Amino acid sequence: MADFLTKKEENYAQWYNDLVIKADLAENSAVRGCMVIKPYGYAIWEKMQAELDKLFKATGHVNAYFPLFIPKSFFAREADHVKGFAKECAVVTHYRLRNKKDGKGIEVDPDAKLEEELIVRPTSETIIWNTYKNWIQSYRDLPLLINQWANVVRWEMRTRLFLRTTEFLWQEGHTAHATSEEASEETKTIIDLYAHFVQDYMGIPVLKGYKSDSEKFAGAIDTFAIEALMQDGKALQVGTSHFLGQNFARAFDVQFTDKSGNLEYVYSTSWGVSTRLMGALVMAHGDNNGLVLPPNLAPIQVAIIPIYKGNTQLSSISDTALKLKSELEKADLRVKYDARDTHKPGFKFAEYELKGVPVRLAIGSRDIENGTVEVARRDTMTKEIVKIDKTTGHIKDLMTEIQKNIFNKSLEFRNKNTYEVNTWDEFRDSIETRGGFILAHWDGTAETEEKIKNETKASIRVIPFDETGEEGKCIYSGKPSKRRVVFARAY
Amino acid sequence: MADFLTKKEENYAQWYNDLVIKADLAENSAVRGCMVIKPYGYAIWEKMQAELDKLFKATGHVNAYFPLFIPKSFFAREADHVKGFAKECAVVTHYRLRNKKDGKGIEVDPDAKLEEELIVRPTSETIIWNTYKNWIQSYRDLPLLINQWANVVRWEMRTRLFLRTTEFLWQEGHTAHATSEEASEETKTIIDLYAHFVQDYMGIPVLKGYKSDSEKFAGAIDTFAIEALMQDGKALQVGTSHFLGQNFARAFDVQFTDKSGNLEYVYSTSWGVSTRLMGALVMAHGDNNGLVLPPNLAPIQVAIIPIYKGNTQLSSISDTALKLKSELEKADLRVKYDARDTHKPGFKFAEYELKGVPVRLAIGSRDIENGTVEVARRDTMTKEIVKIDKTTGHIKDLMTEIQKNIFNKSLEFRNKNTYEVNTWDEFRDSIETRGGFILAHWDGTAETEEKIKNETKASIRVIPFDETGEEGKCIYSGKPSKRRVVFARAY
Repeated sequence: MADFLTKKEENYAQWYNDLVIKADLAENSAVRGCMVIKPYGYAIWEKMQAELDKLFKATGHVNAYFPLFIPKSFFAREADHVKGFAKECAVVTHYRLRNKKDGKGIEVDPDAKLEEELIVRPTSETIIWNTYKNWIQSYRDLPLLINQWANVVRWEMRTRLFLRTTEFLWQEGHTAHATSEEASEETKTIIDLYAHFVQDYMGIPVLKGYKSDSEKFAGAIDTFAIEALMQDGKALQVGTSHFLGQNFARAFDVQFTDKSGNLEYVYSTSWGVSTRLMGALVMAHGDNNGLVLPPNLAPIQVAIIPIYKGNTQLSSISDTALKLKSELEKADLRVKYDARDTHKPGFKFAEYELKGVPVRLAIGSRDIENGTVEVARRDTMTKEIVKIDKTTGHIKDLMTEIQKNIFNKSLEFRNKNTYEVNTWDEFRDSIETRGGFILAHWDGTAETEEKIKNETKASIRVIPFDETGEEGKCIYSGKPSKRRVVFARAY
Repeated sequence: MADFLTKKEENYAQWYNDLVIKADLAENSAVRGCMVIKPYGYAIWEKMQAELDKLFKATGHVNAYFPLFIPKSFFAREADHVKGFAKECAVVTHYRLRNKKDGKGIEVDPDAKLEEELIVRPTSETIIWNTYKNWIQSYRDLPLLINQWANVVRWEMRTRLFLRTTEFLWQEGHTAHATSEEASEETKTIIDLYAHFVQDYMGIPVLKGYKSDSEKFAGAIDTFAIEALMQDGKALQVGTSHFLGQNFARAFDVQFTDKSGNLEYVYSTSWGVSTRLMGALVMAHGDNNGLVLPPNLAPIQVAIIPIYKGNTQLSSISDTALKLKSELEKADLRVKYDARDTHKPGFKFAEYELKGVPVRLAIGSRDIENGTVEVARRDTMTKEIVKIDKTTGHIKDLMTEIQKNIFNKSLEFRNKNTYEVNTWDEFRDSIETRGGFILAHWDGTAETEEKIKNETKASIRVIPFDETGEEGKCIYSGKPSKRRVVFARAY
C-alpha cells in the first residue's frame, strides 16, 4: 500500500494528498471545494469531537444550535466583520426550482426570489448576537457559555482536503459576559483548553500567543492562537480564541442591567477549531508508510491479525485472538480482529500501517504453542515477542508510551526547527532554506509586517504570551523592539 | 411558571408552542422558518443522538459526512425524486458579495454567478450515490452501511418549531447492498431499531407498517414508517426507512461485479429521524405543568432543592445534598443541585416541573434532623418521604418505574383512541369528533385514498406489517379489501 504514496521528501504536498485519500480519510466531492469525509476519517473526527466536547462541558459550556442562514444585512452591522467574512460566501437568492418549459430538466424559478438574500454562515457571530439580544437583560442572565457544532461555508478559491475547504465542520463557541475581565479570562481559558487538547490528545506541541492586528479575526479586539509546526517546516494555525470586547454587543444592541442598575453593553468571546485539525494530525505525524495516530484519538488502537494456513490453524488462532480481544476491550482498548480470508497478512500489515493503528498484534501457530504474540509499534516500527498472559498490561503501558513518544518526537522536531535570528539576511536565508519557526525582533508596525510578508511569504504566527522581555532591534526596520515574535511560512 | 402556559385542553397548538418556548427548548429565529435550538432542548437532542448512534453502530453502521450542496442537475437524474424534493429548496446562485456603489451596505456581485446552481441538501441520496459510484466496484465492497448526522433544508411555507422547520437536524442512513433481499432486510432492521428507540427511550408506542404509494418517499419502492399518536388525537410520523431498490443505482450508474462475474446494479436503502422527534416527545407526554421527560433521555434526571432560612441552615443542608448528589452520580444518575439564592423553592419546583425533570428532591432542616428527603415524581406529581440512606436505590428503581409508566400511559391513551370503523358515516363522524387512529378497510386504490383525504383530511398512516388477514369492504367505495389500514389526521 505504501508504494502508492508519494515519498514525503520528494513532494510533501502530494504525499499529504495521497495519504488523506489512500488512508480513507477524505476525498474531493463533485461540488467544487467541498470534501466527503469518509468513515475512517470521520471516526477520528468523532473522537476529537467527543474529547473536546467533554473539555467544553467540564468548563461549564453547553451546546446549542443556530440557523445555517444569515440575512445579508446582519453582516453589514459590524464594520470589520463584513470585510473579513461576507465577501467570499455562498449566497442563497431563490427558494424554488421549476420544470423547464422544454421539459428537459429544472431551472431556478424567477418568481421565487428572496426579498433579502441569505448567506450560508461562514461563522455565526451575527446571527448568534442577534439571538442573544433577546436572551440577555440582566447581569443574572450572564455569563452565557454556549458552543455550537456545525458546518460552515467560506468560498475558497484554492482548496486542500481538510486544510482549506469550502465547507468544513467545526465548533464555534460564543460567550457573553458582564465584564471585560471575565471575557478576557474566558478567551484565555479556551486557548489553554485547545493547547491541552492538541498537545495531549493529538500529540502535537503548540506555541500560544496573540495574533498581530493584521492577522486577527475580523471584528476582534484580540485573537489568541495556537500554532503547530508541520514536517515541511510550515506553520499551521490549529485553533483561535477571540476577545471581541463590546463590538458585537454594540452592533446588535445587546445591553444588560448591571448590579448597580446601569445599562451596559455585553462583553463577548468567540473561538473555534475545525476539521483542519485532521490535516494537522496527518501532517505532524505521518510518514512514508502512512498515518501515525496517537492512541488517544485512534479509532482502532490495536489490530490483531492471524497468521495461518488452513482452517484448522485459523480456528485455533481465532480462539486465542478473540479471547485476547475481549480482554483488551475490558481494559478499555479499541480493538479490531481482522480474520478476512480475502487478504494476506502482509497486505493487512501494510493497511494498518497506512491507517496509523498504534499497535498491531500478529498471532501464528507457533505463537499458540509458545503462548506468545508478536507486538508491532506503528510509531517506531519495532517488533517484540510478548507472553500472551502479559499482553494486556503491556499494551496498556504501550498506549501511554506511544502517546508520549509521538509528542516528544514532534516536540524535538519543532525544537530543531526553531531559530533565533537577528539580521535581515539571516532571516531571509533561514526562511528560504530551513523553514521552521523564526524568533525575531519586530518593530510592532503593520507596515513592517506586510513588507516582510511580501518579501519572504513569512507571517507573524504569534506574539508569545510568555514574553522574554528581551529588548532588541527589528530585523527589518532596525527600530527598537520589546520582544521577539514568531515568524513562519504558513498554511 | 405553568401559569404562562396555555391550557392543553383550550388550545393544543398554542400549548405546544408555549411549552417549547417556555421550557427553553427552541425558538423562532430571525430567518424565516429556521429555529434556534436552545441549550436545554439541544441537551435532549444530544441524548437522542448518543443513544441512536450507539444503536446504529451496534448494527454495523459507521458515520461519514457528505457535502451540504448538491448540483442542480443531480436531482434531475431520478425522476420521482426531483418531483418530491428539488422544488421547494434553498438555491445558491452566487459566491460573492460586494460593496454597494453608494457605500451603503453590500449586494450580490453579479460577476460571481455560479455556472450551475447548488441546492442546499433537502436529503442526500443524489450526492451520496454519485459518491458511491467510485466506492463500489465489486461484491467485496458491499454492503456499505453508512449514516450521516447533518442539517438539511426544505423550504416550508408553514412552519412549527421542531415539527416542520425550513432547516432541521437529522440523521440519514444510506446503505448499499448486493441483493434485493439484503436491502429489504436492512430496511426492516432500521424500522425496528427506530421503533425500539421511540418506544423504549422516548416512551412513545408506535405503529409500524408500509406507507401507501402516494405517501411514500420520492424515489422509493417501499417506505416503512412508524407513527405515534399525539394527545390531540393526531398522528405524527416519527421515522421512515426506505427500500429504494435499484432506483438510485440506475440513476447514478452504480454497478458492481457479483460473485459470478456479472455486472449488476446495486440495491439501496435510506432512512432517517430528525429533530421532529423533539416535537413528538413534547406532544406525547407534556401536561399543563410542562414537559414530562422519560428518564432515559432527560438531561437532568434528579433535581435537588434545598429548603432553608439563612446561611447556617443552607450550609448544613448543602453538605447533605452534595453528598447525596455524588452518591446518585456514582449510580450513573444525572443530577443537579440547585442552591441558587436568587430564586425561592416554589419557583424552582415549578421550573423543574416545566422542564420535565423526572424526580425532584427537596431537603429541609427537619429532613436533616430526621435523616429523610422528600421525593417528588414528575409523571404522577406525587410526593413521598424517603430515608436518606435508602434514596439512591429508591431513585434508581423510580427511574425504571417512571420510564415504564410514561410508556404505559401513552399506550393506554393510544388504545383508548384507536377505533375499528366499518361504515363511511361512522368514519367521518369518528374523525371529526374523536380523532385518533381509525382501523378501516380500504380498496387499495390511490383514487379512494385521495377522496377520503379530501373529504376528511384523514390519510393512511400505515398499512400494518402484522396483517390480521381480515377481509372486508372498503369504507368508501364498498369494494373488497384484504385488510384494515390505519387512518388518522396527521401533522
